[in-house]
Amino acid sequence: MANMDINEFREFGRAAIDFVADYLENIRDRDVLPSVEPGYLHDLLPGQLQDAPEDWKTIMEDFKQCILPGLTHWQSPHFHAFYPSQTSYSSIVGETLAAGLGVVGFSWICSPVCTELEVIMMNWLGQLLNLPKTFLNCGEGNGGGIIQGSASESILVAVLAAREQAVRRLKGEHPELTEAEIRGRLVAYTSDQSNSAVEKSGILGAIKMRLLPADDTAILRGSTFIQAVEEDRAAGLFPVICVATLGTTGTCAYDNLEEIGPYCNEHNIWLHIDAAYAGAALCLPEYADLMKGAELADSLNFNLHKWMFVNFDCCAMWFKDAGSVTKSFSVDRIYLQHQFQGHSKAPDYRHWQIQLGRRFRSLKVWITLRTMGAEKIRNLIRFHIQLANRFEEYVRTDDRFEVLCSTLALVCFRLKGDDAQSKQLLENITKRKKVFMIPATYQGKFIIRFMICGIDPQMHDIEYAWDEVRSQADLLLGVDQNRNEVTAKVSSPAPIEPPVFEKATEIGKITESLAGAMLLSNEKAQ
Amino acid sequence: MANMDINEFREFGRAAIDFVADYLENIRDRDVLPSVEPGYLHDLLPGQLQDAPEDWKTIMEDFKQCILPGLTHWQSPHFHAFYPSQTSYSSIVGETLAAGLGVVGFSWICSPVCTELEVIMMNWLGQLLNLPKTFLNCGEGNGGGIIQGSASESILVAVLAAREQAVRRLKGEHPELTEAEIRGRLVAYTSDQSNSAVEKSGILGAIKMRLLPADDTAILRGSTFIQAVEEDRAAGLFPVICVATLGTTGTCAYDNLEEIGPYCNEHNIWLHIDAAYAGAALCLPEYADLMKGAELADSLNFNLHKWMFVNFDCCAMWFKDAGSVTKSFSVDRIYLQHQFQGHSKAPDYRHWQIQLGRRFRSLKVWITLRTMGAEKIRNLIRFHIQLANRFEEYVRTDDRFEVLCSTLALVCFRLKGDDAQSKQLLENITKRKKVFMIPATYQGKFIIRFMICGIDPQMHDIEYAWDEVRSQADLLLGVDQNRNEVTAKVSSPAPIEPPVFEKATEIGKITESLAGAMLLSNEKAQ
Repeated sequence: MANMDINEFREFGRAAIDFVADYLENIRDRDVLPSVEPGYLHDLLPGQLQDAPEDWKTIMEDFKQCILPGLTHWQSPHFHAFYPSQTSYSSIVGETLAAGLGVVGFSWICSPVCTELEVIMMNWLGQLLNLPKTFLNCGEGNGGGIIQGSASESILVAVLAAREQAVRRLKGEHPELTEAEIRGRLVAYTSDQSNSAVEKSGILGAIKMRLLPADDTAILRGSTFIQAVEEDRAAGLFPVICVATLGTTGTCAYDNLEEIGPYCNEHNIWLHIDAAYAGAALCLPEYADLMKGAELADSLNFNLHKWMFVNFDCCAMWFKDAGSVTKSFSVDRIYLQHQFQGHSKAPDYRHWQIQLGRRFRSLKVWITLRTMGAEKIRNLIRFHIQLANRFEEYVRTDDRFEVLCSTLALVCFRLKGDDAQSKQLLENITKRKKVFMIPATYQGKFIIRFMICGIDPQMHDIEYAWDEVRSQADLLLGVDQNRNEVTAKVSSPAPIEPPVFEKATEIGKITESLAGAMLLSNEKAQ
Repeated sequence: MANMDINEFREFGRAAIDFVADYLENIRDRDVLPSVEPGYLHDLLPGQLQDAPEDWKTIMEDFKQCILPGLTHWQSPHFHAFYPSQTSYSSIVGETLAAGLGVVGFSWICSPVCTELEVIMMNWLGQLLNLPKTFLNCGEGNGGGIIQGSASESILVAVLAAREQAVRRLKGEHPELTEAEIRGRLVAYTSDQSNSAVEKSGILGAIKMRLLPADDTAILRGSTFIQAVEEDRAAGLFPVICVATLGTTGTCAYDNLEEIGPYCNEHNIWLHIDAAYAGAALCLPEYADLMKGAELADSLNFNLHKWMFVNFDCCAMWFKDAGSVTKSFSVDRIYLQHQFQGHSKAPDYRHWQIQLGRRFRSLKVWITLRTMGAEKIRNLIRFHIQLANRFEEYVRTDDRFEVLCSTLALVCFRLKGDDAQSKQLLENITKRKKVFMIPATYQGKFIIRFMICGIDPQMHDIEYAWDEVRSQADLLLGVDQNRNEVTAKVSSPAPIEPPVFEKATEIGKITESLAGAMLLSNEKAQ
C-alpha cells in the first residue's frame, strides 16, 4: 500500500548500489562526453505519465538505455573541466540513509540530531582546515558554521546579511536619508575574476556589485580595492561588502586578503571569502599561507562537494558573528516555535539561510570524514596536486605548448602563438569526447584549463590525457616525428605511486615524502 | 585508493538499503518524538576528526547508537505536524543513483539528460495536475517548468524576477525617478496567513512585503487586496507582486484567485501561487475547482516532497513566461558557454534559479512517477484525505471538542472553551511523544493541527492518534465514564480499506467509489 512493495524496494535498492559500484569502477570505459543532440530524450520517453505502475526492473533497464547515454561523466578521471565535484562511496551511502530517514531539519525539534550533528561537523571541519577559532561554534564569541547548498547560496547569504546590517547601521548614522536613499547608495566589490555567482548575488540582492580589475596574475590587490572604495565614498556611496576569492574559477588565483582585509575591518566593510575549491587545501600544513588574512573575514565558504569527497550539494560556511545573519533574516511563526529556541547548542539554522527546509546533509559529512580519517583526506588532496604537477611536467616537455599558470590541481596551458590554434585544439579534443576540458582567459590569452577531477584519478589517467592532447596537437599542427620521439622519452618519468592507507604506521612516512614534494608546488602557487 | 574499497562500498550500501527498509517497516515501534536534551550529541561524539580511517561497520553501529535517538520520525504515521514530507521507496533509490552518478547539471553540456529529463518531467507533472497548457514547456508560448529546492526558493525567485521586471518597466515609464527611488517605492502583497518564507522573501529581496489581513476563514479576498493596492498606488508606490497561497500553513486555506487574479493581470502585478502542499490535490478531477483563477498566475509552485511521494528536496515551479526570469538573472562567463545555448529543448536552468549548481533531482521524479503510475498517485492522495476525514468524524463524536476547519488531509480542532485547555492538552500529548501535532491560530483561537503524514499512513494509525488525543483529554479534564463509553461506540465505524493496486482492472472501481466520497469533502473545502 506504500509507494512500492518493501521487498521489491530491497531488490531495487541493492540493484542500485551494485549499479553504482559497477558504473564507478568501470567509468573509464565510457567517453567522458555524451554523443547526443539536444532533444534526444524527447524522442525516447512518452509525452505523459502512464496510468499503471511499472516494474522496477523495467525502469532500471530504461535508466541504462535512456538516461546513461545523456550523461557527462563528472566522476570519470577523464573529466578535467570546471572544478571537481567528487562524489565518494561513503557519501553515496550517506545520501541513501538521509533519503531513507526523510527528516527535514528546519528547527531543533524537527530532528535534534540534524542540527547538533551539523554544529559538530562544522567544528570538525573548521579544525581540519585550521580555521581561526573565532569562526567555530566551539570557540569563544559568536562564531558558527552551517552547511549551505552551494557557494552561490553562501555568497548570496553573505551579501544579503551584510546589506541588512549596513542598512541598520546607516539609518542611525544618516538620519537625514530615507531608507530607500541609503539602499540606493550601497555598493559591493569583487574581482572581475570571481565566479559568476558573485555578480549574480548583486543582481539578486539589488546591490551594485563592482567587478574590479584583477592584476595581471588574476589577483585582486588591495590598492585596486581601496582606490575603488575611496572613490565611491567620495561620491557619497556606502561600501558594504567585498567578496574575495581564494581560487578563482578561471585560474585558481588567490585575492590578496592581507591587503584587502585590514581596510575592510577599519571601514566596517564585510569581508567574505569564497574558497569554494581551494579551501580544501587549507587542511595541508604546507598550504597554511593560503590562510593569511582569512582571520580578518566576517564569513567564508568552501565546498566539500568540490574537493573533500562529499557529493553535491554540501557547502560549508562560517560566520565570525552568527548573529549578524540571524538578526538580518529571522522571521518566526507560532507553528515554528519550540521550547529550546535560543539554546546555543541548538541553533535554528533556518535563520542562517535562504530556505526554510533543510536536508540532513551533515550525515554524509560525518560518514565520509570517519570513513577516511584526517590523514587520508590530506594525502588524497596531496596526491591530486601531484597528478596535476605531473601533467604540467608533460606540457613543459613539449615546446609547442606553454603553461601560463598552475595552482593546486589546476594547470592552465595553451599552444604558443595566437589564440586560434588553442581554440581549434580544444574544439577538436572536445569533439572526440575522450577528455573534457574548458577554456578561460589569462593575461588576455585563451587558455585551456586542465583540472584533476573524478572519483579516483590515477597516474595513468594523466598519461591518457596528455597522450590525447599531444596527439591532437600533432594532427592540428602536423607531426614532427623527431620532436615527438624526444617528447615521448622525456614524458615517461618515474611513475607516481598513489598513497597506501592500509596500516596506520605507514601514514606518517607517506605524509612526509608527499609534504616535501608539495612545498615546491606551494611556493610556486604563492 | 579511492575513498573506500569498492567491495566494502557494496556491503555498506546494501546494509544501508536493508537498514532503511527495516527502519521504515517498523517505524511505528518508535516514539515519534525523540527523548534527548539539547546538546546530547556533544557528549557522544569526539571533539574532532580522528586521523585514522574507520570501518563502515563501526560507523553503522554508531549511526544506530548516536544518530537514531536524535531523530524526529517524519516518516512515522504518528507524525501529524507541519505538512508531510513523505519520502518513498522509489525516491530513495533515485537519490542513491543520483548520488552515484554525481553529475552537476548547471548547463546542458554538463549532462544533457539532467536538463532534458527535467523538462519532460515538468511536462508530465503539469499534465498530471491539469495545469493550464500555457505553463508547460511543451505548450505554445514561453511557458516552462523547473525543479527548485523548496517553496521558499520558488517564492524568492518569483519575487526577485517580478522585482527586476518591474524596475525595468518603471524606468521607462518614470524617467523622472532614479532607480533607487523606483526600488524604494516597490511593494509586494501576501496574506497574513502565508508561510513565513513569503515574509522572508521580502526581507531578502529588499522589497516591502505587506501582510494583508485574511478574512475570518483565513482566505485573502480580492477586496482586501485591491483596497491595499489602490491605497499604495495613491501614495505613489509601485505594486509589484502578489504571492497568493493555495493551502496556507496554518489551516490550508485557499486565497481567492478569481478575485485577485484579474486585478493583477489588469495592473501589471505579478501573481505567484504558492501551492506547496495543496498543489498535489490538483491531480484529482474532483478538486478541479482548486485551479479556478490559476490560469491568471505568472508563476506557481508545489512541493513533490510534501504530497507526491518524492523525498525532500523537490519543488516544482512553473512560469507562464520563462523569459521573465532568465532575463532578470542571467550572468554568463566564457567557462559556462557551450554551442547549444538558447536551444528550446536545452534550457540553461541555472538562469531560472538562485544557485549555479544543480542536483539531478528529475531522476527520482521519473523513477517515482513510473513506479506508481498516475492512478496510484491519485488514489493514495484520495486515501490520505479519507483518513483525515475519519479523524474528523472521531473528533465530532466527542462533544468536548470542536472542529474549526478541515481541508484535504488536515483537520484543525480544539477543546471547546478558552485556549488554555487546548494548549495544555497539546503540551501533554507532545511530552508523551506518541503523536506529534503542532498548533496554529484560527479566528483568534488556539487550534491543534492534525495532518496526515508519514510514508504509509493507515486506518489504524488514525485510531491510534484519536485514542491518544481522547485519553489525554480524559486525563486533563477528568474522565466521564458514561460519555467515553458512548464515544467509544460511535468511534468504531466500519474500517476504511486502503486501495489495492495489483491489477489494472481494479483501479477504475476504486477510483469511482473514492471519488464519490471525496466530492463531499471537496464541497466542504470550498
